Amino acid sequence: MRDLPEWASIREVGPRDGLQNEDPVPVADRVRLIDALSGTGLRHIEAGAFVRPEAIPAMAGSDEVFGLIERAPDVRYTALVPNPHGAERAIDARADALEVVVSASETHNFKNVNRKIEESVAGIVEIVALAEDADLPVEAVISTAYGCPYEGDIAPDAVAELAGQLLDAGVESLCLGDTTGMGSPRRVDEVFDALEAAGVPVAGVRLHFHDTRGSGLANVLAALERGATGFDASIGGLGGCPYAPGASGNIATEDLVHMLHDMGVATGIDLDALIECALLAEKIVGRALPGQVMRAGPRTRLAPAS
Amino acid sequence: MRDLPEWASIREVGPRDGLQNEDPVPVADRVRLIDALSGTGLRHIEAGAFVRPEAIPAMAGSDEVFGLIERAPDVRYTALVPNPHGAERAIDARADALEVVVSASETHNFKNVNRKIEESVAGIVEIVALAEDADLPVEAVISTAYGCPYEGDIAPDAVAELAGQLLDAGVESLCLGDTTGMGSPRRVDEVFDALEAAGVPVAGVRLHFHDTRGSGLANVLAALERGATGFDASIGGLGGCPYAPGASGNIATEDLVHMLHDMGVATGIDLDALIECALLAEKIVGRALPGQVMRAGPRTRLAPAS
Repeated sequence: MRDLPEWASIREVGPRDGLQNEDPVPVADRVRLIDALSGTGLRHIEAGAFVRPEAIPAMAGSDEVFGLIERAPDVRYTALVPNPHGAERAIDARADALEVVVSASETHNFKNVNRKIEESVAGIVEIVALAEDADLPVEAVISTAYGCPYEGDIAPDAVAELAGQLLDAGVESLCLGDTTGMGSPRRVDEVFDALEAAGVPVAGVRLHFHDTRGSGLANVLAALERGATGFDASIGGLGGCPYAPGASGNIATEDLVHMLHDMGVATGIDLDALIECALLAEKIVGRALPGQVMRAGPRTRLAPAS
Repeated sequence: MRDLPEWASIREVGPRDGLQNEDPVPVADRVRLIDALSGTGLRHIEAGAFVRPEAIPAMAGSDEVFGLIERAPDVRYTALVPNPHGAERAIDARADALEVVVSASETHNFKNVNRKIEESVAGIVEIVALAEDADLPVEAVISTAYGCPYEGDIAPDAVAELAGQLLDAGVESLCLGDTTGMGSPRRVDEVFDALEAAGVPVAGVRLHFHDTRGSGLANVLAALERGATGFDASIGGLGGCPYAPGASGNIATEDLVHMLHDMGVATGIDLDALIECALLAEKIVGRALPGQVMRAGPRTRLAPAS
């Protein structure tokens, strides 16, 4: 048998990263989805983003969402913030943690936020200061960590160096983002090699994979074998349809949990309750989602033989 | 870096296993698809089945298909045969190898062919005799090897015992079939442990995975790490749509080859040519197929930065 961790923690990103890539849905539906997710055993939910509503209409009203959800005491509800102003809004809305993003690719970072990487890191330093005043942790995502759609594979050492800079800046945790689905087991190995060489503690690095090219769960397996214990996933695969061009293709939380449990990796999550949430997510966005276990059922669900 | 084989052989099953699960398409389209596939570097193509046309209308005319394809000299064109009569028809049609199937699950085998496993093995012995007379090899598939929809996980020792019986019966090679998508990395380990304990040479066992529950390529990675070097796959994911209930969900050949090449596992196949075949398959069946690399493009295909 292979050597895998006994336990993995899952961060649910459907209500933010997922819904952000869908047509806007009412605040009440976002609240309903988050509350359903918080009843599954999930301990970490990305609940909204404090961005300009003109830029991302689907995240408008995130302050209302944070005000209306029923807070489960053991769940961390996080908010994405692009800048200090967003951080202030998230703190006012009582987010449990702030999430910041910077790309490992200069080209991607510039196209995305019109800034050099070092300027983005400087902005993160400001956000960390605000978060510290409010006694909140900051989670950092390194996007294009597994590859940039403009530059191709970013040097693994550059990813590791940025990881070190962010930890130095005071972020609590790191996540490697698979922005356009370029993750692969080979790339996971290269990035982990570089992180280990740079002394970044890999067990604390969360991984965010897309299934854009079919290898989403293979990437997870590769990362588990390298000692990773934290993963992002999106309920039902919300936020990306493999049939649509340019889709983000988040791995589906229920497919991830199904595979982890089968391999003996505990998550503390109730898979059946998660599947109910995936069906709810589908109802909310009004289209079929790419998650597969919600359709096929867990492999343990047998058919009558007679 | 992980320890993977340098090379893997792929058997393309789209023209049989794939199309069998679609509405029937004209013989000319089947021939066109097979001829396109034989130009990609693939060396092994499941080209048809000699079954009763009333039972499987999509495979009617397989003799015509075998008569019309342009035979590439280094490609093996195989035919599925359910019984000695089918074997005779396949031999007459000049198939390069015969393929037989038996389930590791008594319940599944009985529901499928109304026979006990030992009766199916006896039938395979007859087919092997016919094949030997015609100087053809026989490939055997053990279905429900990763789990049965009626019985659940079949004892790995039972799978290994059946594998031994089939080798004793004179089949040239074995394939483990993931009939209803119950394969998982954990199950791969259990079956490989049993095969190794029984002295079955695992490097020669081909693996047939479905992506019914999202872990198709994770299963491939797990098997590669255990020394497997042969895989079945279906062009475009033909034969199963993850959105349809009861879909078989074959892994897509181009997604498999994309991941293998990225990990440094050679296949001798031209990925771009394979993607063209997937687009052709889509045209032939007239609907979107679940393959993802055909949609997203290989991860090496970059966008212009300006």
